Amino acid sequence: MGNNIKIHQHSQNLCDFPGIRKLVTNELKNPAESPTLHVFPELFLCGYPVQDLCLQNSFIDEYLSHLELLNQAFLGAPKSEDLYLLGGLAYEFSKTGIPSSIENVIWLGKPGQKLEKIYSKMQLPNYDIFDERKYFTPGKKSATIHWQGNQIGLLICEDMWPSVHYSKNPLDLLSEEKEPFDLIVNMSASPYNVRKLASRKARARTTSHLLKAPLVYVNLVAEEDEILFDGASFVLNGDDEIYQAAQFAPETKVISFEDIKRKRYQTITLNLQHSWEDLFAPQLTTGKEPRLLPLEDTDHEELIQALTFGIQEYARKNGFQHFLVALSGGIDSALTLALLKLSLKEGQTIEALYMPSQYSATESYDYSEELCKNLEIPLKNVSIKFLHSMVRNTFHMNFSEDFEGIADENIQSRLRGALLMARSNQTGRMVINTSNKSEIAVGYSTLYGDSVGAVSLIGDLYKTEVFSLAHYLNETRNGLIPQGIIDRKPSAELRENQFDTDSLPPYPILDTILECLLSYRYSKDDLVKMKLPEEDINKTLKLYTGSEYKRRQFCPIIKVKTKSFGFGYRVPINKDNKFYFN
Amino acid sequence: MGNNIKIHQHSQNLCDFPGIRKLVTNELKNPAESPTLHVFPELFLCGYPVQDLCLQNSFIDEYLSHLELLNQAFLGAPKSEDLYLLGGLAYEFSKTGIPSSIENVIWLGKPGQKLEKIYSKMQLPNYDIFDERKYFTPGKKSATIHWQGNQIGLLICEDMWPSVHYSKNPLDLLSEEKEPFDLIVNMSASPYNVRKLASRKARARTTSHLLKAPLVYVNLVAEEDEILFDGASFVLNGDDEIYQAAQFAPETKVISFEDIKRKRYQTITLNLQHSWEDLFAPQLTTGKEPRLLPLEDTDHEELIQALTFGIQEYARKNGFQHFLVALSGGIDSALTLALLKLSLKEGQTIEALYMPSQYSATESYDYSEELCKNLEIPLKNVSIKFLHSMVRNTFHMNFSEDFEGIADENIQSRLRGALLMARSNQTGRMVINTSNKSEIAVGYSTLYGDSVGAVSLIGDLYKTEVFSLAHYLNETRNGLIPQGIIDRKPSAELRENQFDTDSLPPYPILDTILECLLSYRYSKDDLVKMKLPEEDINKTLKLYTGSEYKRRQFCPIIKVKTKSFGFGYRVPINKDNKFYFN
Repeated sequence: MGNNIKIHQHSQNLCDFPGIRKLVTNELKNPAESPTLHVFPELFLCGYPVQDLCLQNSFIDEYLSHLELLNQAFLGAPKSEDLYLLGGLAYEFSKTGIPSSIENVIWLGKPGQKLEKIYSKMQLPNYDIFDERKYFTPGKKSATIHWQGNQIGLLICEDMWPSVHYSKNPLDLLSEEKEPFDLIVNMSASPYNVRKLASRKARARTTSHLLKAPLVYVNLVAEEDEILFDGASFVLNGDDEIYQAAQFAPETKVISFEDIKRKRYQTITLNLQHSWEDLFAPQLTTGKEPRLLPLEDTDHEELIQALTFGIQEYARKNGFQHFLVALSGGIDSALTLALLKLSLKEGQTIEALYMPSQYSATESYDYSEELCKNLEIPLKNVSIKFLHSMVRNTFHMNFSEDFEGIADENIQSRLRGALLMARSNQTGRMVINTSNKSEIAVGYSTLYGDSVGAVSLIGDLYKTEVFSLAHYLNETRNGLIPQGIIDRKPSAELRENQFDTDSLPPYPILDTILECLLSYRYSKDDLVKMKLPEEDINKTLKLYTGSEYKRRQFCPIIKVKTKSFGFGYRVPINKDNKFYFN
Repeated sequence: MGNNIKIHQHSQNLCDFPGIRKLVTNELKNPAESPTLHVFPELFLCGYPVQDLCLQNSFIDEYLSHLELLNQAFLGAPKSEDLYLLGGLAYEFSKTGIPSSIENVIWLGKPGQKLEKIYSKMQLPNYDIFDERKYFTPGKKSATIHWQGNQIGLLICEDMWPSVHYSKNPLDLLSEEKEPFDLIVNMSASPYNVRKLASRKARARTTSHLLKAPLVYVNLVAEEDEILFDGASFVLNGDDEIYQAAQFAPETKVISFEDIKRKRYQTITLNLQHSWEDLFAPQLTTGKEPRLLPLEDTDHEELIQALTFGIQEYARKNGFQHFLVALSGGIDSALTLALLKLSLKEGQTIEALYMPSQYSATESYDYSEELCKNLEIPLKNVSIKFLHSMVRNTFHMNFSEDFEGIADENIQSRLRGALLMARSNQTGRMVINTSNKSEIAVGYSTLYGDSVGAVSLIGDLYKTEVFSLAHYLNETRNGLIPQGIIDRKPSAELRENQFDTDSLPPYPILDTILECLLSYRYSKDDLVKMKLPEEDINKTLKLYTGSEYKRRQFCPIIKVKTKSFGFGYRVPINKDNKFYFN
């Protein structure tokens, strides 16, 4: 009877200590016949990211009790050869009782013994959405364990991505070990972005060759505010792929040590990355012409999975079962509604609200109706015409200034926002925002108007990607979205004959500029060198730099890209610093 | 003729490279007769905090040109014995042209020579609002310079606050120097909070005794989004205070070396802080019963200075000259309006908007009118009654559900928000939000309703502090705020006979709970031990933990406390993690 590895790709709520404990104690009570190495994700014992909560007394008290209860469970468990690798926190306190050190560690569990802190994460990422140096103290030593005659090297997530920015590098330290490794374990809480799995695997393959051993990678499945953790755990051995877990779904899997014996590996020299950017935005380092990569079919499928998972988890964690979407007759709200419909679980419902003003084309209603018919979603039609004209009258009566232009455009959007939120308050439905990344980037939306919502579903997709995903949905899901919606010229319908292209560059150009700006950190000079039209560049830069204040008050956006607006995007609002873009 | 120190407490816009250069070149062109050591604040050459901008090609290109132009200016400057200490950035690049290291440094300037990087900040704060480890690489060596026979030790801001969390500690390294110091220079960009100056000075005194030399502390004056930098530079020598610069205003000052000769100092042993919290929230380590410190007269004056400075800088940097405030007849909007009026500069105007619904008391208008008379601000009265009833009718016509309760309360607030923004769009006035910290903490406001605005002026003051400051304003500024507003029972006036105390604990209790929760990180158990009413604790915790989503979409709040909502407050929105508070 050989030894096994059990991969625990679980999905627990942040701080759900009882639920987390139950999973572990169930395993402890029911040991398998074969000795099993149980591998759980990074920070499994509390969830990730806990942010400031890890400094709050209530969290600390609960977490320490939780650890103590786990100790009792291990002490009282039936003896076995099993071994548990559990990601969690380890606290030290100063004399005043305040945490003097918090480490992101691996707790080693043996039935009959208390938990033992065996390894502390050495490389604490602190770029983009990561704030680990804000909370955690880095470890200083690599860790190797011996189990059932196997030598096993331990890593936590970022430890596999060596950079000159970390003072110690666990891969170097592990490769100095004299005894060969039989297994490398990487316990991760690795945020999702489209195409990330391929880069994780490439890095894991390199690590496997470097340390000359098979590698088990176990990742969390979760949605925390805007960040997704996609699971997609795997086992590989040099270039051989042994196992691939599901993406965006919990999964446990037992693998035999027999199936992943050491083999011949390539000789690899370790390359340290020289910048954070190399790590989180590998596109920057390719030296290739920057561009907005077109979405492939596999990307489309992955995005559908990611977004439907994300929106459902967001709803569940905030206690919502029912949804509300404002339809405009345009592509963004149509795609939002279609994706939401695809995500729907038993007992859940969606309501669509169409709120025409005097500028709304009749097709806008017709398309919305057709869409809702396709999707079997009830559509309510609530005109804002009278409200709009009453506001106009109120202003004419009370103020001497004309009420027109941007004031008149925005009030329509804001009245819609107010009605939508009122309907949400009336029904308890969660409002799903319908903005796309291009709009958010150039501020082509009304603050407190079409920007309202609990969460943005497609806010990390550029407009061209919205089209691309809509096409794909129609091809693969029986034409959910009326072709007319896809074909019509985008318009905000806030004045006569208004079209997006009146204010914005054509979307393919706009999106290319934005992608270069955000993901490649391009300057105006760089963009000009790409031979993009200078007028479009200037227009985009002006709109982009002038709309930070809108982004600051925007709702959370489900993150599916390396560089997204939201928590990992930290740019001053004040405009005084923008001259250098122009 | 002796040697002088010139303290440059300047106020430049972030990235205003030409303006920054002009200041330096003016000094270079007009050297004083006596040899002068010019000391500028931390990151003076670009401003602070630049956040992600320091990774953007446009910023990097401009900044490098700026440095090169400065080099030319120094090379071409008339020879003198002067020395310049300039805070700035130093870049290194990887082969792909991406920054591999950015340091927060002191550039040493000598007329006739190029700038030389003399010191790199060793202690990079990364807690609360600080993200320096996200961008910067820490220095590894302390720095001492020799000038005109003087030995001078260099520090940048946080370097003066030694903690076990930094791998190297410059104070220890400097105290190992054999030759005695004639001067210690600390160049800072230190964010303001009320009573911070005293703690800076206490730390500077300790440092002066420890390193046995006088100390010059030069701080920035600026407002960057929500963060204020208050200047208030100083020179001290052990316990003697030699010079104190203005707070919230630029100031330059020449001090003679003669006036700050070395003296006898106390023998000090260096105490390393053991947690981040010790550094940024010293109240946590006093061991005293936590409490909300009452505001003293000096605190009131300082807060008036801070808030009027902050709002004016925010407006200037975002291109606004005129303001718009919604009055409710309550204390928060009254204090906001009064403070704004005090801040007003020539050519600027304020307009007040009163938007009654059917639930607004007649006193609310009377008080608003009296307030505006006192402040000489035009008041516009725009009723939302008809709009409100039209929305009610619309809902009755279109939906079968009753329109009442929270839906009916919120729509009033949101209609006000929409009208206020429409008036802002119509007039180009900046909307100043009127929420206080207690409301923001418990979500006692309507998202997209009374929460709208470009920036919040009093959002870092608890309700009891709002009262305290209003009292103080009336005592010292001829009763600006009608006593009736201060005396009346706080109400949102969104339904008949609604008072804040229907939903919230009495404000003195609420504010104490909130302060313990936020600034002392107290748990429910801790609060119960303080003998606060358990019902009030439960109510507060439930409201507080349930309103993260509102805070996430709130406008920037001018920060005047150690712990504020906003950029330095990082707590998940998802509610699944909140059980442990209850």
